[in-house]
Amino acid sequence: MAHRYDFASDNVAPAMPEALQALIAANEGFAAGYGADHVSRRAADLIRALVDSDAEVRFVPSGTAANALTLATLASPHEAVICHEHSHVATDETGAPGFFGSGLGLIRLGGGSGRLDLAPVVAAANAPDTAHHQSPAALSLTNTTEYGALYRETDVGALAAAAKAQGLRLHLDGARLANATAAGFDPKRLAPLGFDIAVIGATKAGATPSEAIVLFDRQLARRFDARMKHAGQLVSKGRFLAAPWIGLLETGAWTARAAHANAMATKLAAAMPFRVLHPVESNGVFVEMDEPTLKRLHAAGWFVYRFIDGSVRFMCSWATTDAAVEEVAAALKALA
Amino acid sequence: MAHRYDFASDNVAPAMPEALQALIAANEGFAAGYGADHVSRRAADLIRALVDSDAEVRFVPSGTAANALTLATLASPHEAVICHEHSHVATDETGAPGFFGSGLGLIRLGGGSGRLDLAPVVAAANAPDTAHHQSPAALSLTNTTEYGALYRETDVGALAAAAKAQGLRLHLDGARLANATAAGFDPKRLAPLGFDIAVIGATKAGATPSEAIVLFDRQLARRFDARMKHAGQLVSKGRFLAAPWIGLLETGAWTARAAHANAMATKLAAAMPFRVLHPVESNGVFVEMDEPTLKRLHAAGWFVYRFIDGSVRFMCSWATTDAAVEEVAAALKALA
Amino acid sequence: MAHRYDFASDNVAPAMPEALQALIAANEGFAAGYGADHVSRRAADLIRALVDSDAEVRFVPSGTAANALTLATLASPHEAVICHEHSHVATDETGAPGFFGSGLGLIRLGGGSGRLDLAPVVAAANAPDTAHHQSPAALSLTNTTEYGALYRETDVGALAAAAKAQGLRLHLDGARLANATAAGFDPKRLAPLGFDIAVIGATKAGATPSEAIVLFDRQLARRFDARMKHAGQLVSKGRFLAAPWIGLLETGAWTARAAHANAMATKLAAAMPFRVLHPVESNGVFVEMDEPTLKRLHAAGWFVYRFIDGSVRFMCSWATTDAAVEEVAAALKALA
Amino acid sequence: MAHRYDFASDNVAPAMPEALQALIAANEGFAAGYGADHVSRRAADLIRALVDSDAEVRFVPSGTAANALTLATLASPHEAVICHEHSHVATDETGAPGFFGSGLGLIRLGGGSGRLDLAPVVAAANAPDTAHHQSPAALSLTNTTEYGALYRETDVGALAAAAKAQGLRLHLDGARLANATAAGFDPKRLAPLGFDIAVIGATKAGATPSEAIVLFDRQLARRFDARMKHAGQLVSKGRFLAAPWIGLLETGAWTARAAHANAMATKLAAAMPFRVLHPVESNGVFVEMDEPTLKRLHAAGWFVYRFIDGSVRFMCSWATTDAAVEEVAAALKALA
Repeated sequence: MAHRYDFASDNVAPAMPEALQALIAANEGFAAGYGADHVSRRAADLIRALVDSDAEVRFVPSGTAANALTLATLASPHEAVICHEHSHVATDETGAPGFFGSGLGLIRLGGGSGRLDLAPVVAAANAPDTAHHQSPAALSLTNTTEYGALYRETDVGALAAAAKAQGLRLHLDGARLANATAAGFDPKRLAPLGFDIAVIGATKAGATPSEAIVLFDRQLARRFDARMKHAGQLVSKGRFLAAPWIGLLETGAWTARAAHANAMATKLAAAMPFRVLHPVESNGVFVEMDEPTLKRLHAAGWFVYRFIDGSVRFMCSWATTDAAVEEVAAALKALA
Repeated sequence: MAHRYDFASDNVAPAMPEALQALIAANEGFAAGYGADHVSRRAADLIRALVDSDAEVRFVPSGTAANALTLATLASPHEAVICHEHSHVATDETGAPGFFGSGLGLIRLGGGSGRLDLAPVVAAANAPDTAHHQSPAALSLTNTTEYGALYRETDVGALAAAAKAQGLRLHLDGARLANATAAGFDPKRLAPLGFDIAVIGATKAGATPSEAIVLFDRQLARRFDARMKHAGQLVSKGRFLAAPWIGLLETGAWTARAAHANAMATKLAAAMPFRVLHPVESNGVFVEMDEPTLKRLHAAGWFVYRFIDGSVRFMCSWATTDAAVEEVAAALKALA
Repeated sequence: MAHRYDFASDNVAPAMPEALQALIAANEGFAAGYGADHVSRRAADLIRALVDSDAEVRFVPSGTAANALTLATLASPHEAVICHEHSHVATDETGAPGFFGSGLGLIRLGGGSGRLDLAPVVAAANAPDTAHHQSPAALSLTNTTEYGALYRETDVGALAAAAKAQGLRLHLDGARLANATAAGFDPKRLAPLGFDIAVIGATKAGATPSEAIVLFDRQLARRFDARMKHAGQLVSKGRFLAAPWIGLLETGAWTARAAHANAMATKLAAAMPFRVLHPVESNGVFVEMDEPTLKRLHAAGWFVYRFIDGSVRFMCSWATTDAAVEEVAAALKALA
Repeated sequence: MAHRYDFASDNVAPAMPEALQALIAANEGFAAGYGADHVSRRAADLIRALVDSDAEVRFVPSGTAANALTLATLASPHEAVICHEHSHVATDETGAPGFFGSGLGLIRLGGGSGRLDLAPVVAAANAPDTAHHQSPAALSLTNTTEYGALYRETDVGALAAAAKAQGLRLHLDGARLANATAAGFDPKRLAPLGFDIAVIGATKAGATPSEAIVLFDRQLARRFDARMKHAGQLVSKGRFLAAPWIGLLETGAWTARAAHANAMATKLAAAMPFRVLHPVESNGVFVEMDEPTLKRLHAAGWFVYRFIDGSVRFMCSWATTDAAVEEVAAALKALA
């Protein structure tokens, strides 16, 4: 029996029509390569409008690469980046930050549902600077978090202030910033909050592979294309990375369809017969489930993952239907 | 006046209909991520058929990354790769092989029209192994070359034999292998010739961004997905990198449209009023042109590049039309 | 008031007379560079005798570099090394393994007093191999550990067997192997136990800066000098790194003086008025001490460090005298 | 028959008495580790006096490492360093700059006897900045050069001005700065000339292994110890790297004995029966010699190297005696 992957991740979904249509529209005529084309310019303008900032914008095909490349831009090899111990950069990138950053370190801190607590961040930011450890040069936040939790502006503000007070740079892993935006976080606040770089996701939001690198600190844009090329991240036919953004942002689908994904998670949580372990603030539902039950769920045809904290994760996306939620809820009820 | 980019490169062309239709067809339903999907499997099967080998196949969005990652797979950081001094890996990748290979060296050798001469390769492969230099671990060939020249099977065979005799690994930069195939090189000969890894291009052949990494030596596939992820090259929605290959290979368009591109170059060369500096064996025409003339060509609206050897390069692609060749030929005649 | 550093570390001691005399003796006439000299050959022979193995031997000036370089020899960048969470490679090398290994990962596991427990090592060695994590390629043990504890041969044997059963390579950080040897571990057992590489320390044992890299797997010696040179570890006047080993090993001082250091720690532990937190099996004594007391100890002129686990560390060396032990014990009694 | 290495290199010589005596003197009592000791402070003061600048000073055991680490401090991985095509960093470091700099590039330019010509440096410094190449971030000069030639202050000034005009950083490989100083170059001019970092050699000047890293731009000293530790270059018993400098500089031997080495080369050049190919401005004599003659010289017991440009190199050192010069000259006459 083939598995249904609907809830396995938000990257198992196809591209939404808006993205695909924009991609088809971009496939007209000849265009300069390496991001110097009209499609890339227009998409960058739309992202600048989204974040209300005259930032430099680039597009890459992988979120892992976008994170790792930008962390390496903000911290030297002998320095470290403060991040959540369960963040994507710490747990799900196969050491990519260390590769892009030539041994760059991560300082992994705790906090509920993937949100960093303030106290350990303050402590790490203020720790004595010795030659025997990699001292922090940046703080990376993920919004929404790996557990679907939302950082609200005030949460971010406190962490950002603690980081900036010690001269740290500020990095956003916004692979699911669309879901955060739909849940109430305003991307226009990123620049005033002091972010130096944000990675903003289109892939999980429903595009073909594309993530935007937003350089709020325009000084960092110097030779950034060369940095991308050197790191294997400058795609020649750049218009195809930029195009889906036009579909997502011009139509409002980036936020609207994230709102749908979030709503599907809320619906699933409401019907969930297992204990929900993290606040359902965006598009994921994490539940307590023992191994035999998970095996039976797999046997029933629904593929989902056991996550880092031991919970079982159900992710919704733009493509999740009410019917699918009802079907999986029924399957879960049969197992509970 | 807007420039026409038709002849600036073969990566300024849009994607061919076969590629786009396959991409649209792949956008159905949910699919496992990171290359474990049905689209990727089918595309890999098609590539195995193309090269007549039970090789492992992966897809990445950038040829520079594909080259750099695979060179780093074949040579250790304290070793070097023998390549042509004008090869893409040596001149057009912003040092990416050194980045992916942690300081991996390149031994840059000469030869006409981008084809390596045998004698210097033999000499480099047999040079004394000292601790003060990066000794060669691999030989990288590019077919067709940066100058549009074709390595024939016998050329490759002699170079491959010299490399293999010294225990070197064999790497193909096949960004334009479609053009080489259309010009008479049989991809089924790669495995018997001893290639360990080939990078085979779809991007310049007329796809959305995608290059195939073909691991003829299946031992190299161990943990290769982790290697890709670590290096920021494992795209989550992998089906969109694999899909265009289905369109290109199932229809025969990969070769057929490369044959068209080659024919357009032949047609342009025939009409070319400037001295042609390299044999026109595939889709490029390289001519002698002084700087004032090039400026006037640009002023006339045609954007083309001055290449590494000082020649001016005209590249044809699947999308080059007879009309465009005639137009640019007329513009050139007016300048000559 | 100047601090006394006697107990701050075993690297604050001067070089023992045997080391210095050998260094002076080596300073005769001209000698080939880069380790190809007669002094290096003789020292390597002595190390081969010490470990009873026809291993390849090299000398480097830093233990951090020796560890990082050899871990990078045993694991690829997208792989990881299993180590103790408090091991030197994990906590005291400023990320050097990640630098030498281009983002190489560490899998940090627990165990009392710096000794790895078997169960988590077995679990890590047998964990599923996925592309999203750095899977283990090697196991690194430290003998004696950061807390002065000794791995006995049977302890090592069980861990080594678990590692080898899963195809992992085996690495020894033997910065204090002299102390382990004096405490009963036989270096001749390293090869039969399956170690691929051992780093054996002279610096902390009482030499001028020098650590030996012992390649039990002679295959790894291929182009190893080039690997060292590439990584900035091939010193031109190599005889000065090799020479102290002749003094240490020909006279038996490497073990005999480590036995003295161990005895001084035993003596200090016996007189220690604070609670001793780790078994005193070699040359360190780790005690419970609150911050005000530590400050008073510093104020009394004795500089010692608070260690990773919160204990306060007193290290003895070849140069520690009975009188110094009695003096510091008296100072401690005055504070207790 | 054993070879005589007297003229093979200036690193085959033993350490001079002044260096060894200082090293012995430094071996007193306990001292803080990692360069925080009194010996390191005193040696750093002497170097600050030598260069007449309040620079930060560090000591490392290898010139290759010192160069590679400091180039990586001045240029990012996607950038390049302009250097002479025959410079040590380009030809004799097994790619170490690329390793320390994570793929850092070198722009190799020409010029007689290892001295960079001004015109190509100006051209490289002013070349258009594109994403497809590694654009220059620094200029590295070597004084004296690999061919024993001297850059005079005016030579350096012109090159430095060209570099600084384009915002490039300035790096000195001063492995043989002692010989340059003895030949008339004043180290006190380094800071006014705009050098950001200089590597100043003691090893070839006649010490045990030690090179000084001089950070004229003190901003670069931030976290530099961590950078060294991360790169395996922070030796724990740092006093033994610093000590020889005290012997070399307090006695004036660094310059005086370099003057002797230079004089020995002048004497050898005067007696040389083969054509001298480079100006004898310091301690090396490079001559035209065919392969059979070189083999006969080797057979006569004198080991010397054929150098990069095909010449045969005779290096003199502090330890070269008049008698040895006369002996080798006689041997050469017998072959000529």
